[in-house]
Amino acid sequence: MAIITLTTDFGEKDHFAGATKGAIYSELPDVKIVDISHSVSPFSIPEAAYIIQNAYNSFPKGTIHIIGIDSEINPENKHIAIKLDDHFFICANNGIMSMICSEIAPEKIVEINIHDKIQTSFPVLDVFVKVACHIARGGTLDIIGKAITNIKPIKNIVPYVNEDKSQIIGSVIYIDNYGNVVTNIKRGFFETIQKGRPFEVSARNYKFKTIFSKYSDIVNFEIPEEKRHDEGRGLVVFNSGDFLEIALYKSNTTTVGSASSLMGLGIMDAVSINFIKE
Amino acid sequence: MAIITLTTDFGEKDHFAGATKGAIYSELPDVKIVDISHSVSPFSIPEAAYIIQNAYNSFPKGTIHIIGIDSEINPENKHIAIKLDDHFFICANNGIMSMICSEIAPEKIVEINIHDKIQTSFPVLDVFVKVACHIARGGTLDIIGKAITNIKPIKNIVPYVNEDKSQIIGSVIYIDNYGNVVTNIKRGFFETIQKGRPFEVSARNYKFKTIFSKYSDIVNFEIPEEKRHDEGRGLVVFNSGDFLEIALYKSNTTTVGSASSLMGLGIMDAVSINFIKE
Amino acid sequence: MAIITLTTDFGEKDHFAGATKGAIYSELPDVKIVDISHSVSPFSIPEAAYIIQNAYNSFPKGTIHIIGIDSEINPENKHIAIKLDDHFFICANNGIMSMICSEIAPEKIVEINIHDKIQTSFPVLDVFVKVACHIARGGTLDIIGKAITNIKPIKNIVPYVNEDKSQIIGSVIYIDNYGNVVTNIKRGFFETIQKGRPFEVSARNYKFKTIFSKYSDIVNFEIPEEKRHDEGRGLVVFNSGDFLEIALYKSNTTTVGSASSLMGLGIMDAVSINFIKE
Repeated sequence: MAIITLTTDFGEKDHFAGATKGAIYSELPDVKIVDISHSVSPFSIPEAAYIIQNAYNSFPKGTIHIIGIDSEINPENKHIAIKLDDHFFICANNGIMSMICSEIAPEKIVEINIHDKIQTSFPVLDVFVKVACHIARGGTLDIIGKAITNIKPIKNIVPYVNEDKSQIIGSVIYIDNYGNVVTNIKRGFFETIQKGRPFEVSARNYKFKTIFSKYSDIVNFEIPEEKRHDEGRGLVVFNSGDFLEIALYKSNTTTVGSASSLMGLGIMDAVSINFIKE
Repeated sequence: MAIITLTTDFGEKDHFAGATKGAIYSELPDVKIVDISHSVSPFSIPEAAYIIQNAYNSFPKGTIHIIGIDSEINPENKHIAIKLDDHFFICANNGIMSMICSEIAPEKIVEINIHDKIQTSFPVLDVFVKVACHIARGGTLDIIGKAITNIKPIKNIVPYVNEDKSQIIGSVIYIDNYGNVVTNIKRGFFETIQKGRPFEVSARNYKFKTIFSKYSDIVNFEIPEEKRHDEGRGLVVFNSGDFLEIALYKSNTTTVGSASSLMGLGIMDAVSINFIKE
Repeated sequence: MAIITLTTDFGEKDHFAGATKGAIYSELPDVKIVDISHSVSPFSIPEAAYIIQNAYNSFPKGTIHIIGIDSEINPENKHIAIKLDDHFFICANNGIMSMICSEIAPEKIVEINIHDKIQTSFPVLDVFVKVACHIARGGTLDIIGKAITNIKPIKNIVPYVNEDKSQIIGSVIYIDNYGNVVTNIKRGFFETIQKGRPFEVSARNYKFKTIFSKYSDIVNFEIPEEKRHDEGRGLVVFNSGDFLEIALYKSNTTTVGSASSLMGLGIMDAVSINFIKE
């Protein structure tokens, strides 16, 4: 049974996500629909790119991913369908897929042309659902569009490295539900530049000399629990998507605050790594 | 396989929606359950009416819609089940269905009487689930209630038109996830009164002379992108549900604001259309 | 077909819940996945305990419940799987299950040991999904862990009763979507101490002499509707989970406020019941 996932900025309240699911079941009764997220910030392409990149490859090969962000068709915003890593993605050609495509080469990209006469203010329902169901029934991309080779890029997906490779300057690309601050510095990229050198991570006036593999690595479990004061301490970790992340250990975002709120780190802020001469 | 949808004000955190789904699967293992919304504002009947009206008809005929808003039974708030447009709706008789019923005549309305002895503070779970599963198994409405002919109305579902038909005065009935302001003026109603005349839409001190068919119609794509300043501009559109809507083009609700926040337009505020003598 | 439920603090926006569902379908195509809640406050074990206790038993026997709150494994936070009331629960041994286990004795508890070599910052995906799918395929708990007899408790699950049984002092354990204030005083516990005596419920300087069975019992339907002023009135009710709850009748949380906001009642605040000598 085909799986169709939904990643949108429709929010949790409006009828848009429900109507989309109804339209899928109307076309295709035997399908599994999975919500990845409907709470992407309105029109935020970088957030959507981060979320779909981190979610898609947990799904079985052949899964079809509808991404409904800034998807109204116009002369500068065409619809595309992409086959990549044996998954299918349907979205506007607005940069959402450029993060994934920078790591894995697409097998096929088409610009969708089945809807040249549709006037719609709800393209996810009127176009993406039809394309997704076509693919779910085993249809090929060639039938619903013409092949293209390039997609629109987004900025800031690769961090800057200075000439003598003594510094990486990355930027914040995502703030998660715990207020943790995710950067565009990936583990593999870091290790290639680092070559085993000691380093210091800097964000505003905060400095860190260690990058952990999991959050609780910050705790020294040999100290008795009542003498520890780890909750709320800052740390740097490669998160489950292998992105460098600045976090507070088990901090209550409502009462205490988060890495984002307490350190004052927001989207696009710089996070740098300085390598130290030995 | 039957489809049962859920539209409630349970919110995203509490156990109510999960428990409801569990109760449905306990009665009926082979059913598809679809969340339309659990984020209706608490006790907001107009919001629920708008959401279900815009979502239901994307679903296949025969779908069963549970609407759990203000559904505690009491002498003035009976439970009803309605067959309309080959869909089934189960809710309290509190006005939720009057918006849909004003456009499409119900085939059948029953006042549910299978639960006259149940004392419950969770009627969606204890009553609506049982009714939904009865219908899903092919049961008729006659078995679970007695036929009635009228349901409770809600106010403000039809805009006001003045005597010489030179003005429509509508009101705001919904604010969506993008902060767009939805009125009760529908495209068909507008066109019947307009008869091709030029017009001006007014909301507070904002005036608009055009109603678009999609949001990006506001953009002049012949001007080079770097010289345009369209993001955040106000516009009027007939939305995907054919309601007249005041929107800001691709505005970031968090950082910039929305039509609702920037124009100061809230639920029940007036939006008028003046027709101009030619 | 097996049912797997998810109760987490992942939030509605991030990719975590979507990725978890993808991983389950990758292991087990024929399964029903049900979201109970992803909006538990970050790291809030009492909230998660309350939600899962109130949701689980609406599901069919045999349902598998994944609870992803504070689940990173470390020397003091082991993973456990519990069979109880013919349901299965997979979570960290951090107190989440102690509320349910204080009412119903578990049939079996194992400390999961299949992952002793996994380094992960996403244990729900890397560990809990594998355990859930093992159980869904009919596997036993013995294969994935070693039996243990005790789990970690949480505080404040039982209210205090004074020596002469003239007073119960409970505390607030949950604030629901309507801003209603839920205490740890359960109906059965109350009735055992009450033995039919009259009583007074106190929270801050608010006093109540009646506990209702449903919210609208506060309304006197013999008074004409236009002369009543019930909306927003405070009341005490045993809620659908049989917990003593302080509520405002049909209050709009956004415009008017809720029992929590208007009475100033938050998590851990005291609610007492004084029994009156006859």
